[in-house]
Amino acid sequence: MAEEVILLDFWASMFGMRTRIALSEKRVKYDHREEDLWNKSSFLLEMNPVHKKIPVLIHNGKPVCESLIQIEYIDETWPDKNSLLPSDPYKRAHAKFWADFIDKKVNVTARRIWAAKGEEQEAAKEFIEILKTLESELGDKKYFGDETFGYVDIALIGFYSWFGVYEKFGNISIESECSKLIAWAKRCLERESVAKALPESEKVATFVSDCRKKLGLE
Amino acid sequence: MAEEVILLDFWASMFGMRTRIALSEKRVKYDHREEDLWNKSSFLLEMNPVHKKIPVLIHNGKPVCESLIQIEYIDETWPDKNSLLPSDPYKRAHAKFWADFIDKKVNVTARRIWAAKGEEQEAAKEFIEILKTLESELGDKKYFGDETFGYVDIALIGFYSWFGVYEKFGNISIESECSKLIAWAKRCLERESVAKALPESEKVATFVSDCRKKLGLE
Repeated sequence: MAEEVILLDFWASMFGMRTRIALSEKRVKYDHREEDLWNKSSFLLEMNPVHKKIPVLIHNGKPVCESLIQIEYIDETWPDKNSLLPSDPYKRAHAKFWADFIDKKVNVTARRIWAAKGEEQEAAKEFIEILKTLESELGDKKYFGDETFGYVDIALIGFYSWFGVYEKFGNISIESECSKLIAWAKRCLERESVAKALPESEKVATFVSDCRKKLGLE
Repeated sequence: MAEEVILLDFWASMFGMRTRIALSEKRVKYDHREEDLWNKSSFLLEMNPVHKKIPVLIHNGKPVCESLIQIEYIDETWPDKNSLLPSDPYKRAHAKFWADFIDKKVNVTARRIWAAKGEEQEAAKEFIEILKTLESELGDKKYFGDETFGYVDIALIGFYSWFGVYEKFGNISIESECSKLIAWAKRCLERESVAKALPESEKVATFVSDCRKKLGLE
């Protein structure tokens, strides 16, 4: 069957980056469609009527929403290349736990650093603690899944392109606090899938500055 | 191998109820250990050092945290009885989407009804809208997974034992607004796994009243 794969995406989204990386790891060809988040397409609203958010993966006309669910879907649908999740149920549960931790902690706290007024310092302190927890889970392993790049790496790596933003608005140095995590990020960036999916930090910084103006924060 | 399965739980937790139901559907025997949430055991803190929350499922000494991840783990570890998730990747992704929706929307909004001051009415209105969205997804199906009781049903049904609390503090009638969802809940309660896992509404009401006193809300 001829596969039709469409990704509704936005370049600066760390969630979109996840799905781009997963598709790239599986060598899936897809039609990449950039959305204007301030003027969403009717196709996006039709494909994700509940959350109205990117990324949306559309496979043969059927939408899959939420980036972590998309990674699992991609792994199950194209199982022949680069397994993204371990096959052992306990290891799978362990990977899902850490990806869930990233969704619950990293993004929420990161947003409080750059998109809120007055609580940046507290959020920045919490953010470093969260990264240290992740660093402790990483330990001396090459990737979160040990020797294999996979689910947890994909869930986290997109945030790296925003680290400069968090450092600027949180007045922190992530590299000096979490050097092992930075080394891990640089290892991930050696993969073509990651290098292609992540935007340049300077471009993200400009985008965030524009966002803050639109949100009335500057 | 002799299986050792322990569940660290708290009777009124809708998350704990999920895991109880999943274990019961699979006919897994386990050691049920009730936690005092105001004085957590050192075993709980050791088994879930990151979130320090119940439920924790401990299988042959290894902890699995977060209730939705536990359901998936249970389904993968004991695959021979009552599949909880569909085998088709698209249907799996669809079920995960709705369970994720329940975690992101239902619990957060429900808590705003009974555990906050002054915004109960707004939260109650939002809560009804969220239930209507779920009702629309249910449609005329017997269960969320059509003819098969499974993942999404398990993710949602525990909240039913708290509906009386939401009705009281939100000043709403869920039955008159969402009659199909109530009929679904009653169908679920015909299953032994659900009937055994859900506490009586009156007991939950007394517990919430005590909680509100402890939180200084009454």
